Amino acid sequence: MTTPTELYETHRELLDRAVQAAHERDYWSAFPESPSKSVYGEDAAPAGERAFTALLGKQFPIDVPGAVGTVSTERSPFGIELGVSYPKADPLALVAAARAATPAWRAAGPEGRAGVAAEIIKRINARSFELAHAVQHTTGQAFVMAFQAGGAHAQDRALEAVAYALAASTRMPAGATWAKPQRGTDPLRLAKTTTVVGRGVALVIGCTTFPTWNSYPGLFASLVTGNPVIVKPHPGAVLPLAISVQICREVLAEAGQNPDLVTLAVEQPGDGIAATLATHPDVRIVDFTGSSEFGNWLEANARQAVVYTEKSGLNTVVVDSTDDYRGLLRNLSFSLSLYSGQMCTTPQNLLVPRDGIETDAGHKSADEFGADLAAALDKLLGDPKRAAGTLGAIVNDGVRGRLAEAGDLPSVVHPSAEVAEEQFPNATIRTPVVVRLDAADEKTYTREWFGPVSFLITTDSTRHSLEIFVETVRAHGALTAAVYSTSPEVLAAAREAALDAGVHLSENLTGGVFVNQTAAFSDLHGTGANPAATASLTDDYFVTGRFFALQSRHHVPAPEESHA
Amino acid sequence: MTTPTELYETHRELLDRAVQAAHERDYWSAFPESPSKSVYGEDAAPAGERAFTALLGKQFPIDVPGAVGTVSTERSPFGIELGVSYPKADPLALVAAARAATPAWRAAGPEGRAGVAAEIIKRINARSFELAHAVQHTTGQAFVMAFQAGGAHAQDRALEAVAYALAASTRMPAGATWAKPQRGTDPLRLAKTTTVVGRGVALVIGCTTFPTWNSYPGLFASLVTGNPVIVKPHPGAVLPLAISVQICREVLAEAGQNPDLVTLAVEQPGDGIAATLATHPDVRIVDFTGSSEFGNWLEANARQAVVYTEKSGLNTVVVDSTDDYRGLLRNLSFSLSLYSGQMCTTPQNLLVPRDGIETDAGHKSADEFGADLAAALDKLLGDPKRAAGTLGAIVNDGVRGRLAEAGDLPSVVHPSAEVAEEQFPNATIRTPVVVRLDAADEKTYTREWFGPVSFLITTDSTRHSLEIFVETVRAHGALTAAVYSTSPEVLAAAREAALDAGVHLSENLTGGVFVNQTAAFSDLHGTGANPAATASLTDDYFVTGRFFALQSRHHVPAPEESHA
Repeated sequence: MTTPTELYETHRELLDRAVQAAHERDYWSAFPESPSKSVYGEDAAPAGERAFTALLGKQFPIDVPGAVGTVSTERSPFGIELGVSYPKADPLALVAAARAATPAWRAAGPEGRAGVAAEIIKRINARSFELAHAVQHTTGQAFVMAFQAGGAHAQDRALEAVAYALAASTRMPAGATWAKPQRGTDPLRLAKTTTVVGRGVALVIGCTTFPTWNSYPGLFASLVTGNPVIVKPHPGAVLPLAISVQICREVLAEAGQNPDLVTLAVEQPGDGIAATLATHPDVRIVDFTGSSEFGNWLEANARQAVVYTEKSGLNTVVVDSTDDYRGLLRNLSFSLSLYSGQMCTTPQNLLVPRDGIETDAGHKSADEFGADLAAALDKLLGDPKRAAGTLGAIVNDGVRGRLAEAGDLPSVVHPSAEVAEEQFPNATIRTPVVVRLDAADEKTYTREWFGPVSFLITTDSTRHSLEIFVETVRAHGALTAAVYSTSPEVLAAAREAALDAGVHLSENLTGGVFVNQTAAFSDLHGTGANPAATASLTDDYFVTGRFFALQSRHHVPAPEESHA
Repeated sequence: MTTPTELYETHRELLDRAVQAAHERDYWSAFPESPSKSVYGEDAAPAGERAFTALLGKQFPIDVPGAVGTVSTERSPFGIELGVSYPKADPLALVAAARAATPAWRAAGPEGRAGVAAEIIKRINARSFELAHAVQHTTGQAFVMAFQAGGAHAQDRALEAVAYALAASTRMPAGATWAKPQRGTDPLRLAKTTTVVGRGVALVIGCTTFPTWNSYPGLFASLVTGNPVIVKPHPGAVLPLAISVQICREVLAEAGQNPDLVTLAVEQPGDGIAATLATHPDVRIVDFTGSSEFGNWLEANARQAVVYTEKSGLNTVVVDSTDDYRGLLRNLSFSLSLYSGQMCTTPQNLLVPRDGIETDAGHKSADEFGADLAAALDKLLGDPKRAAGTLGAIVNDGVRGRLAEAGDLPSVVHPSAEVAEEQFPNATIRTPVVVRLDAADEKTYTREWFGPVSFLITTDSTRHSLEIFVETVRAHGALTAAVYSTSPEVLAAAREAALDAGVHLSENLTGGVFVNQTAAFSDLHGTGANPAATASLTDDYFVTGRFFALQSRHHVPAPEESHA
């Protein structure tokens, strides 16, 4: 057994560095994003693939307290057979097991819990290739993206949550001595102790597109602040979280803790155990990523809990002018294409003045801009193999349906096309559709079309674009926003507009940084300030609601004077 | 005009010291609690009294946007005529005025806002004597207590909230440079900016017993994090908050800000403007102190806001044994008597083993303990003038009714008695009632009897006492708890019980520290971990929900190399 305290000592340097990075917010990453042999070793890739393949067609090896029977619900967007089955969860048994595991976890203290969490994340990192295959074949992400977004970047986000949880829960000193001067007599002296106590059982509800990246922050923030965690994956993306929970349980048991501190809650689609768990009186924390419909339901009904949701929104790009037209087109076309726009951060609404924009390549009318964007998409996605590497596969029928619906709208600027890929002939791969709309078509563009669907919306002016941006994001939310302008006045107005709308802003991205990507330890994801999310990943607000600081105090004698 | 930034520079030393104290949590106080001439100057006391007297029988001089007519709702528990009237608020006008004042306040930044807040608190401190009279004659607190709890201690709590708000909202750097290494080419470089944006209009709903102490933390936490604040006093205790709001508006105007950032919302009792304001879509923060009934209503209905409530509970003392029986009796009798038990922190349920307790004065049966506690009360309150100085006056008919109801219960251990006081012959002053109950009488002791009503409850054993303690506090809440024991095992069990119950614990208080008093910058007030309150005054959780951190980012060129 390696105790939590020993694990803290083992990982102390990493944790200290993570806390520092979270504080400074410049570039830092703990886990290399490159799946290259020079980084992860000669055998890592084939070993990971073998490990993944060995899981297929079998019952996944994990203990789930009170489970009855098995379920198998996943299908690969790349068309391979998965056939992994999981123990079917009994929600009440999971809550009872979580509660029973809590006291020893409380006693481990923030540092011990952070040590356990760091060990878990390191072991997750060691299984990055296996996890990348699992992410690829549940979400439809291309392999390299699955390795990065589902692996290294998710691990960085996990460590970031650990850093915030550790820093916030140790900011108040565990002990303090209080001596209040008294007139004409000795000071009143009290020794005071502060103990961190978790809020209660935590529930993490995963999504189908980013099962690890979106679940890890809540999972690790709750765990480090003293709470047991029930992980409820989306039925379409169980495997990445099943592997993650397996690792959590393994490390917890080795650390002398009850592995039921982290459990897996798998259901048959329609069982509704997320709702059952989220409204259980002992479930006091809920983290959710997914639809606004269920997110809003959770906020309204999981009243006994603090609820952190990330839902849908209208990610918006305001195009005013540019001094790098090619860079703008290249950057924007990649943002629309990456993972087939199936990111909560993909731009949907591109607001362009009806009279066009000024660029380093001359004035471009709205028509010309649309045609140039379509051409940029075709150039980016012209080679099927490279296209598949960028697009990944369509995750489910909902996305396919919206793609078809958007394709039937009038004024399609760039139609969606099928892409045939050699490695996975049964994969569902499509290029994005871009549709031309007018500012008046708000019925169409004020709902989220999750997937590779974007609208080129013409407005009266950039000022009008900024008004639409603020109004639509305040009303419907957004996780990202971008502006392109060469005018300092327009950029200043866009910054104010983004503050009013409550969304983070990317300005003039024309190079290798994309509006839909955020970096752990530097970029916040979501704000809480608009309806798309109730909190940021990760800041103090995201962690401080997960624990209480409880004090005790008692008299102490005066310290003995030292006689010189 | 003195700008917010200049005010920050003026008060920077004080603010830095406050942030340090909040971090270290040993003894620190910015505002002297003694109303003596040597501290506040020769003329401070008479000048304060003159200022108070000048307010009586007149309309209070304060601008309230959109006010129509006046209201006058206060009566002094000490029986003097107040007759102060206030502009009657129009809730919608207050919200509109608050919103209009916000943009310039956002632009002032965290430091500037903290500078303004510090200036406000210093001016409040300079009017401490006037405020003490106002607190005395609305709450019924005796003058010295009104000066301390309503003055210096409330000011310390205000500064503590400013310190937490400033520290939390500046923890993320305003600017950062991110440089991500790229293989074989220059790093990707982004400059990132973080701006603090308030959540929205804040509402503070005051209570009748601690109008300043309980309102200042929410008021200043919201203000410093960028929000306009509407202060809605209890109709019985308007004046202390009217003076406070007047000072806020004066300082804000002098700092070039819109004074409508802090407004006063006075109503006719029954107008229900607290509910109207709390559910207004633009009101995004609610701080409330008062009854569980309305607090629970706010939590359930003010869904568009973050809601911080402090409600009622069952403050509990577990008596096991002591090596200072006289000290225990002296300390406990004072805790029961201070301000006639009209503190949210006054012990109500005293749990004592049926077989009695071991003390340094020999074994004491439960009967003997009850008789000794009654004798200690009589000794403490034997002299009418001193008694009035401790007890203050009964704040309203509700408290008087519960006192009468408790006096009619069987087994009264100490009956309540009237106290006649010379200075205020019309004051309503009563000594506490203590009633003997058994553990089985839970119907009586599991509701809060706010006021000078306590129960000596006999249990099977200390273990049984701890069980009742945990069960009742988990179910009904508590703001304070205490234990008396000479046994390290019992103390350890009591600490674990307090962690389970989610309440702060005072151990073996026999001297000059009382369970119902907490010190700013060291003791947390409330925990959030039991139903009596949703948060602590003041910790990071109390402030982090009041603002958002919004980022913008753009490319920057590589820094120029220095050529040596």
